[in-house]
Amino acid sequence: MAFSLMPKEDVFFTLFDQQTDLVCETASTFLDLVKNWDSKSPKIAKLQDLEHEADIGTHELFSKLNRTFVTPIDREDIHELTNELDDIIDLIQSIASRMSLYKIHSIPKELIDLVEVLEESARAVKKAVSSLRDMKRFSRILDYCIEINRLENSGDHLLAIALGKLFQNNPEPMEVIKFKEIYEVTERAIDKCEDVAKTLETIVVKHS
Amino acid sequence: MAFSLMPKEDVFFTLFDQQTDLVCETASTFLDLVKNWDSKSPKIAKLQDLEHEADIGTHELFSKLNRTFVTPIDREDIHELTNELDDIIDLIQSIASRMSLYKIHSIPKELIDLVEVLEESARAVKKAVSSLRDMKRFSRILDYCIEINRLENSGDHLLAIALGKLFQNNPEPMEVIKFKEIYEVTERAIDKCEDVAKTLETIVVKHS
Amino acid sequence: MAFSLMPKEDVFFTLFDQQTDLVCETASTFLDLVKNWDSKSPKIAKLQDLEHEADIGTHELFSKLNRTFVTPIDREDIHELTNELDDIIDLIQSIASRMSLYKIHSIPKELIDLVEVLEESARAVKKAVSSLRDMKRFSRILDYCIEINRLENSGDHLLAIALGKLFQNNPEPMEVIKFKEIYEVTERAIDKCEDVAKTLETIVVKHS
Repeated sequence: MAFSLMPKEDVFFTLFDQQTDLVCETASTFLDLVKNWDSKSPKIAKLQDLEHEADIGTHELFSKLNRTFVTPIDREDIHELTNELDDIIDLIQSIASRMSLYKIHSIPKELIDLVEVLEESARAVKKAVSSLRDMKRFSRILDYCIEINRLENSGDHLLAIALGKLFQNNPEPMEVIKFKEIYEVTERAIDKCEDVAKTLETIVVKHS
Repeated sequence: MAFSLMPKEDVFFTLFDQQTDLVCETASTFLDLVKNWDSKSPKIAKLQDLEHEADIGTHELFSKLNRTFVTPIDREDIHELTNELDDIIDLIQSIASRMSLYKIHSIPKELIDLVEVLEESARAVKKAVSSLRDMKRFSRILDYCIEINRLENSGDHLLAIALGKLFQNNPEPMEVIKFKEIYEVTERAIDKCEDVAKTLETIVVKHS
Repeated sequence: MAFSLMPKEDVFFTLFDQQTDLVCETASTFLDLVKNWDSKSPKIAKLQDLEHEADIGTHELFSKLNRTFVTPIDREDIHELTNELDDIIDLIQSIASRMSLYKIHSIPKELIDLVEVLEESARAVKKAVSSLRDMKRFSRILDYCIEINRLENSGDHLLAIALGKLFQNNPEPMEVIKFKEIYEVTERAIDKCEDVAKTLETIVVKHS
């Protein structure tokens, strides 16, 4: 066995990168699903697998955290970030499950618009988190955070448009019950990306 | 007044045991209520009393925590655990109140199934928390946590079945509005038991 | 430039006062809106402006917190309080937006009653938080907290009345969907005031 030259604390960054890869894959699988909707799509099961994988990664991060005395960034921030990344994936998976359960027939354009914003946010989250590794790239993190905030505002706006359309012209109450939930949980997943941005800003400020 | 041989820190474990007794009594009262449903059952008022008693216990735990310098387990974990136990009771009481308010006539078998899982989770929570007192029994805590996770998966599965049945065959929107909430909040109470398990795992890892 | 005689830590109290001023203005603007409802009222845009202003204040508080080594009260309590005050404003603004989106025609008396309790809670929150500045006034904080708890109980009671009325006599499902959300989010804003009270009690206990 060779000596490891990699500092121990690097493990956290490696685990975070694994989790943000899962966030991106979950978001892009979900975008693919809503663009090519089929209530029996194998992508629904794939999202469950990704969620399960993310649970294992989350567990690994917490175990590592609880066993590590000196951490590269504050423990409470590692804890927060870990939970937030897991929440994004949980939320996406839960929307897909509900869509299948509710036997949704067709997907409104408004949902695709929202999921496109979610997928873009997921990619920005990945880039921002991967920049944690190198303090010299900390200013880039803030750029990604601005981008994530912009996307969250755009998500709010798209949700208002989607709900406005859903509630107009004597809608079917059952359609409203189903799509109100689907839209709102999608928007909550985008919000969770913004929570990641807030946690990252906190980390950057503490190290600057 | 005799000398106390009980170490001071024991107070936390005694208070936790009181709270998990209340969790169990709340869950079993609720199970009894849904099995013998009557919108004017005195059990609805009993659940309010239990919730009130739990609030007092929660308050006592926080007072103790804020006045104690050295705690037997990490302060933030005591804080978390206290809130989670209180949340389980709050959620159960709130479902019972809503059921009474919504003038529910009859209880679907799916709800009884869910509440049975909740009641089992509550009992596992009680056993797990009471094992905190003795580090030699820490491995047992992890066994109870595995059991709580299993129950939470089972709750997820039962919720999907319950919602699937609720949404099929042109349901009455008002029935959907009522029971969707009742099912989901019940499942959230089961989830909260799993949050307790996560907090306990954190405590065990820190002490191992 | 003159020497500043104001201790540095005073900045936190000044920022908190700014935030509670915004909480009060938001709550009273919302009360005014529901008492004189018009889905095109300029007050809806004003609530958005207040929410935006509160976001800036929240950001300022977090920046200050992350750059300050010794804080007048525990960091985690400053963090909690800042988030809770921001949440009250976010919740109020989101209800107003939804009311406009749902094209609400007329406001039930039950909503005005709830918002009156919210507005009273906001004022009690302001007085309680402003008493943080002076430890000699700490006993007053607890009096305000008792008042906030009383208001929260009253809010719970009014929500039950409002929902009871909403669900009786074969209601229109669409009306139920809209007003159930409006009532519940209003009550959640009142709950958030109680969360502030809990955080303040923690701070008082730690300093007594």
